[in-house]
Amino acid sequence: MIFTFKKDTSEAELQRIVSELEAAGIRTARSPESRRPILAAVDPVPDETRARLEALPHVDSVTKPRGSWRRVDRAFRELPTVVDVSGVPFGARGVAVIAGPCSVESEEIIGEAAETAKRAGAHVLRGGGFKPRTSPYAFQGLGKEGLRLLKAAGDSSGMPVVSEIMDASQLPAFLDHDIDCLQVGARNMQNFTLLKAIAGVGKPVMLKRGLSATLKEWLQAAEYLAAYGCDGIILCERGIRTFETATRNTLDLTVLPLLRQWTHLPIIVDPSHAAGIPALIPPLSRASIAAGADGVAVECHPRPAEAKSDGAQALLPGELATLVAETRVVAAAVGRTLV
Amino acid sequence: MIFTFKKDTSEAELQRIVSELEAAGIRTARSPESRRPILAAVDPVPDETRARLEALPHVDSVTKPRGSWRRVDRAFRELPTVVDVSGVPFGARGVAVIAGPCSVESEEIIGEAAETAKRAGAHVLRGGGFKPRTSPYAFQGLGKEGLRLLKAAGDSSGMPVVSEIMDASQLPAFLDHDIDCLQVGARNMQNFTLLKAIAGVGKPVMLKRGLSATLKEWLQAAEYLAAYGCDGIILCERGIRTFETATRNTLDLTVLPLLRQWTHLPIIVDPSHAAGIPALIPPLSRASIAAGADGVAVECHPRPAEAKSDGAQALLPGELATLVAETRVVAAAVGRTLV
Amino acid sequence: MIFTFKKDTSEAELQRIVSELEAAGIRTARSPESRRPILAAVDPVPDETRARLEALPHVDSVTKPRGSWRRVDRAFRELPTVVDVSGVPFGARGVAVIAGPCSVESEEIIGEAAETAKRAGAHVLRGGGFKPRTSPYAFQGLGKEGLRLLKAAGDSSGMPVVSEIMDASQLPAFLDHDIDCLQVGARNMQNFTLLKAIAGVGKPVMLKRGLSATLKEWLQAAEYLAAYGCDGIILCERGIRTFETATRNTLDLTVLPLLRQWTHLPIIVDPSHAAGIPALIPPLSRASIAAGADGVAVECHPRPAEAKSDGAQALLPGELATLVAETRVVAAAVGRTLV
Amino acid sequence: MIFTFKKDTSEAELQRIVSELEAAGIRTARSPESRRPILAAVDPVPDETRARLEALPHVDSVTKPRGSWRRVDRAFRELPTVVDVSGVPFGARGVAVIAGPCSVESEEIIGEAAETAKRAGAHVLRGGGFKPRTSPYAFQGLGKEGLRLLKAAGDSSGMPVVSEIMDASQLPAFLDHDIDCLQVGARNMQNFTLLKAIAGVGKPVMLKRGLSATLKEWLQAAEYLAAYGCDGIILCERGIRTFETATRNTLDLTVLPLLRQWTHLPIIVDPSHAAGIPALIPPLSRASIAAGADGVAVECHPRPAEAKSDGAQALLPGELATLVAETRVVAAAVGRTLV
Repeated sequence: MIFTFKKDTSEAELQRIVSELEAAGIRTARSPESRRPILAAVDPVPDETRARLEALPHVDSVTKPRGSWRRVDRAFRELPTVVDVSGVPFGARGVAVIAGPCSVESEEIIGEAAETAKRAGAHVLRGGGFKPRTSPYAFQGLGKEGLRLLKAAGDSSGMPVVSEIMDASQLPAFLDHDIDCLQVGARNMQNFTLLKAIAGVGKPVMLKRGLSATLKEWLQAAEYLAAYGCDGIILCERGIRTFETATRNTLDLTVLPLLRQWTHLPIIVDPSHAAGIPALIPPLSRASIAAGADGVAVECHPRPAEAKSDGAQALLPGELATLVAETRVVAAAVGRTLV
Repeated sequence: MIFTFKKDTSEAELQRIVSELEAAGIRTARSPESRRPILAAVDPVPDETRARLEALPHVDSVTKPRGSWRRVDRAFRELPTVVDVSGVPFGARGVAVIAGPCSVESEEIIGEAAETAKRAGAHVLRGGGFKPRTSPYAFQGLGKEGLRLLKAAGDSSGMPVVSEIMDASQLPAFLDHDIDCLQVGARNMQNFTLLKAIAGVGKPVMLKRGLSATLKEWLQAAEYLAAYGCDGIILCERGIRTFETATRNTLDLTVLPLLRQWTHLPIIVDPSHAAGIPALIPPLSRASIAAGADGVAVECHPRPAEAKSDGAQALLPGELATLVAETRVVAAAVGRTLV
Repeated sequence: MIFTFKKDTSEAELQRIVSELEAAGIRTARSPESRRPILAAVDPVPDETRARLEALPHVDSVTKPRGSWRRVDRAFRELPTVVDVSGVPFGARGVAVIAGPCSVESEEIIGEAAETAKRAGAHVLRGGGFKPRTSPYAFQGLGKEGLRLLKAAGDSSGMPVVSEIMDASQLPAFLDHDIDCLQVGARNMQNFTLLKAIAGVGKPVMLKRGLSATLKEWLQAAEYLAAYGCDGIILCERGIRTFETATRNTLDLTVLPLLRQWTHLPIIVDPSHAAGIPALIPPLSRASIAAGADGVAVECHPRPAEAKSDGAQALLPGELATLVAETRVVAAAVGRTLV
Repeated sequence: MIFTFKKDTSEAELQRIVSELEAAGIRTARSPESRRPILAAVDPVPDETRARLEALPHVDSVTKPRGSWRRVDRAFRELPTVVDVSGVPFGARGVAVIAGPCSVESEEIIGEAAETAKRAGAHVLRGGGFKPRTSPYAFQGLGKEGLRLLKAAGDSSGMPVVSEIMDASQLPAFLDHDIDCLQVGARNMQNFTLLKAIAGVGKPVMLKRGLSATLKEWLQAAEYLAAYGCDGIILCERGIRTFETATRNTLDLTVLPLLRQWTHLPIIVDPSHAAGIPALIPPLSRASIAAGADGVAVECHPRPAEAKSDGAQALLPGELATLVAETRVVAAAVGRTLV
């Protein structure tokens, strides 16, 4: 249950309620919301307790979350959360574009990718140092050195950077190189040890949806981050696994407007991994923004044919520029701007 | 294989090639394309035959379809097909809006639905006479009488009408009442007897994608219509069945831009059946147009709470008007208009 | 709601209850069960009506079906239904084997297939006259002539025959040739017009599960047959569509024991269409029987390489004989026999 | 490519070929097979190199794996691999039964569970110390203390133990308590950091299939284990995620016989997580053995209603005893025994 209080509720009154709940073995969570107090009961609340609290003069409304999450529920915040990635806001009026190659391959290529992405209008640079590959014999990324090159390319092009973290043991490398946003990949969405480990380090986290994760499981994974201290969570839809094989995955834009009702977190879309075909990425980016996404994350590469991973789905620099321009027009059509 | 000929190719030359192929047991199909001759070999063409034809001076190009279809392949037409539904074009620059209740329930309600849909800006009226219901004990529709009421409502509001046909035995009812477009529902997409029966009656057909139909199966079903004489096929994506249960189905916009490459047929989207939740329909409509759809088909009802079927997913008249207005803006953002 | 009465309940008492329910607008269905009266209320029963009926001295128990079906619910019969296919029982202690080619191709081949299937130990001969093919250009079956050849082969080998009916218009052909069991294919599971048309002709119907049909939808389709007069329904699991592409479909044996709880109908399994690979068919047949299936339906062909459809998944005569022998051993291990 | 050599091939000859391949940048792997030398080329082998090697007098056959794995391919071993879990063989003629509660909850309960499992005929004790839970607020397991209690219960009942490891940081706890087999759960199947970390510690690993993992991805994950030093890999099918919601997951027995052709690894089945309903577990266990599984892993609990996790799907001790007895009979029917 999530309890919204009237604006003039005193801290003493709130503490009294918290104490009462905790005394009954019901853990609570306090919303960071500043406009008025909001409190979530983490554990189930007996009906009579709920009724009694609902009748208190300071309690404005009581909302039942649609799942076992609390902190990421829409009712836990008055306004949608805006996540700041080193100056780039996600979840505000402006739509953000994240772009970059699948993996960091060399200083030269990531530098060139960064320059062309920046010129094309992108706001955040992406690139993988640690790569989860289905085959043990495939290129596994440059590791920590990849993160160093990524950060340097971001710095020289003037963009914050995001990169995938696969395991808690990699965390020092991400912190050493001050990676601006930690990405949790689809395969690790339910790697709870990882989620707990990165939640408290003070970095925004982009949480990709698992390949076969339901909306509920996705929000529960986000709740792990929130419960362990992360206040900068960005959800990223990247396609789900279905029976259709004509495309790599099926982008599930159907859940986008539903997520708006269920959570206060910003939501972006990665059409590159969903489609797996460059020609599909621009129309799917437009569709994502039209469906209400707060941003898109796309793969681009100065020379896709030479890419060591996922080259076949990377956009060329010119295609990225067109995509950004189109995204701007569609954003305007739905009452938004680019960041 | 699909053979595109140069503009000055003589009819005699074409006939010679057709005869040669047919003599080798290879059936052919002639494109209705008027700008230059296009010919499809329905049956497999041996490599040497293909090479010989490709070398002929009048043959401009030879294209291999991506599946076992021929007539619906992109290469079978120079320009995308525009399907005329009694004055409303599907597949041209203008985007069309189909609206109406799930089923025709009474003269009064369908009349009111038609008036409000027309005022909201819709172009085609939908409504079911024959309803496929999962339970034998649920309302099965008014049948032929429903078609009469639908047509009357369409006439008085000035809109052509579309309705679902479930079986060839219902065809006379559709023809008697001059239903402008025959809809084949998701459950019947591979009802080949039905497809063959309705292909030749001179009516446009809106072919919904089956709940678990691949892109290839969908185009093969469309090929049945084309092979048996239908030249007015409209494809309609309406959501596929996935593991996600938060929404009724998952709208597969990922395949929309792919269909543009694979076929010359117009493609519309039905977000009502995909989402099953009214609040999701406007953003999904916008996303569909942004992804390149030629139109949307949505359910609306003057009083959803009283609807005998699918009321829970119907838009109110005012919501429909807003949807049409938003669709217009997004259409403009991707270089299109409303019809 | 399904009401089970005590054995000594008089017909007059039953009629009184039926009249009372019908007067309240609640349709009823009477179970063919002979041991004691069972009555289903087709429409929803208000709580107070239910409570009052439950309190009547002759009412033994009241069961809520798990879906919108009534007549196929487990509670509608005391004992599981045994369906007689011209002498071969489905649903009794004996397990039945249906075998034959995908389609009837010639008198010679179906005759040879029938002889070898019979010798291998099969009980029912299968073979398609009307074939639903995804491509309009593929072999569509011999039609009515195919049914004639199938029946003749069944007669001369001493086996009843089963064949797929795709449309009500084909029904006279099935009746003319006295096809012993009508098969409704996966694509037509929700072709309600077809279900209604064939339910009342006095023939057993084998209802295959749709490629993406839930258990509930499958039982609702069966309920259509039951509601329109069919008392010989056999369910056939044939694999569902999933993301896995290594096999043609995924055989869903998980639902088999659940169906035992939910319905009184016999259930068989078609591993040929599920697997699509001959080597997988024997182990999947064994698994089906071990999971509780009342029979298996497999494809076999005297010369698979020459088959006009689905040859790649057909068993050779010798393989079929081994499969039947193994099935017999596994049936014994779970307390059953072969028919 | 996998190269099988004749029995009399000298070590010098093998080394010569390895050197030649490595000189061309092609990494190799040597099979532990003792009967004759088998060598896999990890990287792609150019056609001409392959042809030349194939023509060598000592090369008996060359096999192309069906995916990017090498060491787990069927062709890499002469005989199926038998994995020894502290005295219990997996993959030999005997079928093994793993049983125990979802999580270790107390010394008393795990002790009682172990005693009853042993008496019922189980061979290996399971129980979770570290539990991956979808909600951060659910019971997360007793951690290291749980492993201690599990091992003690295994020791006193005379059974080796298996428990799930979620992260490399937990490895010392597993080694300290000498857990006999490390289980990688469905959510971690593609947690490559974890796979690499546990592959080399000399413990058998039971690798569960991911909820939406294809057969190919599963074998690629197993290849990670093999490539990093694990020679005791057991695959465990535990149900995949499909559209069907009547059961928790869909047990994919269709792939079982296919895995026999593709890999030499033992394969067991966990019907508890697939079905989620106790009554389904015995028939699905029988079906698994009939389909060729080398064992089953089931959940049981002395008092399911009191279980802190997954109690609703746990078998009672008596049910487990019946299951083991039935499994024995079905195993005999397919030419096998219990361990």
